[in-house]
Amino acid sequence: MSHARVESIKEESINRITKDLNKYVRILKELVSYRSVTSWGLDEVRDCASYLSDLLKERGFKVSVKSYGGAPVVLAEVGSGSKSFIMYNHYDVQPTDPLDLWRSDPFNLDARDGLLVGRGVADNKGNIVARIAAVDSLLDYLDVLDLRVKFLIEGEEEVGSPTLAKVVEDNLSWIRADGGIWESAYVGRDGRLEIPLGLKGILYVELILRGPSRDVHSGYAPLIPNPAWRLARLLSKIKDENGVVLVPGFYEDVDPEFASAAEELIKGMEYGELEGMLKELELKEFVRSLKGVDALRELYMRPSLNISGLYSGYTGKGVKTIVPSTAGVKIDIRPVPGQDPRKLLESFKRYLIELGYSDVEVLVHSIYPSGYTKPSENVVKASVKAAREAYGQDPRLAPLTGGSGPIYLFTSIAKTPMTGAGVGYYGSKVHAPNENIRMNDLINGMKHVALTLIEFAQGAP
Amino acid sequence: MSHARVESIKEESINRITKDLNKYVRILKELVSYRSVTSWGLDEVRDCASYLSDLLKERGFKVSVKSYGGAPVVLAEVGSGSKSFIMYNHYDVQPTDPLDLWRSDPFNLDARDGLLVGRGVADNKGNIVARIAAVDSLLDYLDVLDLRVKFLIEGEEEVGSPTLAKVVEDNLSWIRADGGIWESAYVGRDGRLEIPLGLKGILYVELILRGPSRDVHSGYAPLIPNPAWRLARLLSKIKDENGVVLVPGFYEDVDPEFASAAEELIKGMEYGELEGMLKELELKEFVRSLKGVDALRELYMRPSLNISGLYSGYTGKGVKTIVPSTAGVKIDIRPVPGQDPRKLLESFKRYLIELGYSDVEVLVHSIYPSGYTKPSENVVKASVKAAREAYGQDPRLAPLTGGSGPIYLFTSIAKTPMTGAGVGYYGSKVHAPNENIRMNDLINGMKHVALTLIEFAQGAP
Repeated sequence: MSHARVESIKEESINRITKDLNKYVRILKELVSYRSVTSWGLDEVRDCASYLSDLLKERGFKVSVKSYGGAPVVLAEVGSGSKSFIMYNHYDVQPTDPLDLWRSDPFNLDARDGLLVGRGVADNKGNIVARIAAVDSLLDYLDVLDLRVKFLIEGEEEVGSPTLAKVVEDNLSWIRADGGIWESAYVGRDGRLEIPLGLKGILYVELILRGPSRDVHSGYAPLIPNPAWRLARLLSKIKDENGVVLVPGFYEDVDPEFASAAEELIKGMEYGELEGMLKELELKEFVRSLKGVDALRELYMRPSLNISGLYSGYTGKGVKTIVPSTAGVKIDIRPVPGQDPRKLLESFKRYLIELGYSDVEVLVHSIYPSGYTKPSENVVKASVKAAREAYGQDPRLAPLTGGSGPIYLFTSIAKTPMTGAGVGYYGSKVHAPNENIRMNDLINGMKHVALTLIEFAQGAP
Repeated sequence: MSHARVESIKEESINRITKDLNKYVRILKELVSYRSVTSWGLDEVRDCASYLSDLLKERGFKVSVKSYGGAPVVLAEVGSGSKSFIMYNHYDVQPTDPLDLWRSDPFNLDARDGLLVGRGVADNKGNIVARIAAVDSLLDYLDVLDLRVKFLIEGEEEVGSPTLAKVVEDNLSWIRADGGIWESAYVGRDGRLEIPLGLKGILYVELILRGPSRDVHSGYAPLIPNPAWRLARLLSKIKDENGVVLVPGFYEDVDPEFASAAEELIKGMEYGELEGMLKELELKEFVRSLKGVDALRELYMRPSLNISGLYSGYTGKGVKTIVPSTAGVKIDIRPVPGQDPRKLLESFKRYLIELGYSDVEVLVHSIYPSGYTKPSENVVKASVKAAREAYGQDPRLAPLTGGSGPIYLFTSIAKTPMTGAGVGYYGSKVHAPNENIRMNDLINGMKHVALTLIEFAQGAP
């Protein structure tokens, strides 16, 4: 296609996005209004999937909504070109507690002062809307671009995507594409888009320790074994005072190809991005006083092990005096490329036994490996060029996000290279109260997806 | 008074109690129906105090209900004899969670198979009813016995009796008596009444550790200091693996007079009582494999430090991945006679600083010292003789209960020797779901109080 023709498609696409912006904000408002928290139950989750299905059908997509037992997955396709492109998204969101810290109802999009506040606006409903807007703006040109666009929108990402592996297995040839976009990418403090080329895996376990068969009046505390003390001692042996994980083999098996690509990318990254977090979170410093390249390496190249929740006994207001019958901890472990989370789980369990905790109940809530795409892939180059145009600045490529997602199902199982796009920014408060995006990032995010599709259709830039 | 006259009063009293039993069960049902959990709010607490006030007025008591800002205290007096006797009780109860473990509504007395189930039946509403029944049975003889009986019924015991010191200070001459009964005593597995001669003190603190100013997506866990880890490490330094408290001076300052009286009493105690708990609580052994006299000493002679509650981050169902912004622990410390809880608090705070935790917020929810009565006091001898008659077996005197209560305000401040009585038994599940008493213990408990009053009125047995 001639350069002039490509430029005119770009111009047309961007004009449409700008003109129809309010329409997409209304769609986002509708989407946010569904309390699609899968761990709360499936009623509103199913309603949200239906709404998405209708939305895509209106645009000429062929849609199928499939259920694998839990929240349904929406599969949709438009266009008939020879190049295929897939968008991964999820319509489920995190729970909203602590509710009293929200400035407004998390399920009622609050648009004020250039901000859009609501659960899911950044993670990941805003991205769904941006991608729909991008495809809308190119619907008339899909044939010219020889492009076929697919959406896979699941409803179980925030509970660890328990059925996505089955979805991918059952629809493997449909899912396999020449390139795709994952859910995440965000704008940094310097206005540059940060595109992660992969995600960590996850191993989410809950450990439950038991003491007496019921809570006992703590007058008997001098005699009754208290599982809360035992849990505290166990935790102090899982991580040392410097934050180093003591589970044998925890840092081993990292893919050397990933490691060298990551080292290269980290050279181009800005530590300032992370330093800004310190101020925002009112922290003096990061763990082990990490900074600069060391902090970037820790975040983007190494596995993590974190306490997401801790509970035992009476946690309400005021005073209650008991020896609790149970104590529990929710731990999220995030492996990097090359690491097998099942091997990590076995090593973790062996370590528990070694420490004398063989009686501890280990619930595995979620488990999958990491996945990533090499920076040299066409789809990555297309998204980099598109970002330069949409944001007016070079994007920053990150080897991974600190977060997790089952991207390995696309990159490893479906052999589809994936890049990033996203409407969030460094202050989006993902997973926290007052999750928000900036209106301007929403517009740029829409443009970026549209331009990525156009660049990708042209072949390697 | 002639022996025959005393015996006829006893007989008359016991007959009345037996005849009117159903009436007192109805009163207990009414009393249990008030959700008098002071930490939940004061509305039903006040209603409960009004009900008690009416109940005592009907019987000819002079009643005053006084408020010191929180739950009101009921002060009531009947008779005009020269010997005075005071009953300490509380009408407030512990919270009822976890509610799903109750076999019936905790605020609706469930009488089946010789058991009475409901919040407060053992601690302490059943005792209030038993004492009212005992006084009812002696109302016609108070003059003959030259006895004056007083009730002090507070509504803040389960939240640490924050205003009782002020109540005692303001009404010191009214409260001072020749003897009295505290709230607790219970029937052991062998059918003998266990009478504690004192209670431990309390120092209930909540420690709050802060990390980032808000919960953060745990993708950033490799860098963000997590207060849950820090709390776990702190706790592992407060108690060692053997359950020994590491706070400097924690076991010091025990009153040597108490210690030698306690050693003497412990010789007469049965370890079997405690061993029964192991089976009931499905435990293999007590901490440090303690048993026999060593277990009794640990429980009755030494201070304790316990975790009543532990919380951080996400503790709901399913999965949420965050670095929590706070982590907290509720710790109850129970000093023994001679120990000053303020000194323990200072020592605890100094230890926190020494360990590098000077930034931790320390909330003190409750603080008061231990108090006890010597076994040689008349009131103790009276209650021992009465127990022999009511239960058909010698009671067991214990130096303390493992639990706490502000008995020092009576024994130390008001110089009133206090003994014990009570309708609970070893399986009463005090502070836990399905709190219950046995009908037979209720009857014997009523008789015991009546006989204690009669014996006490005769002077030292």
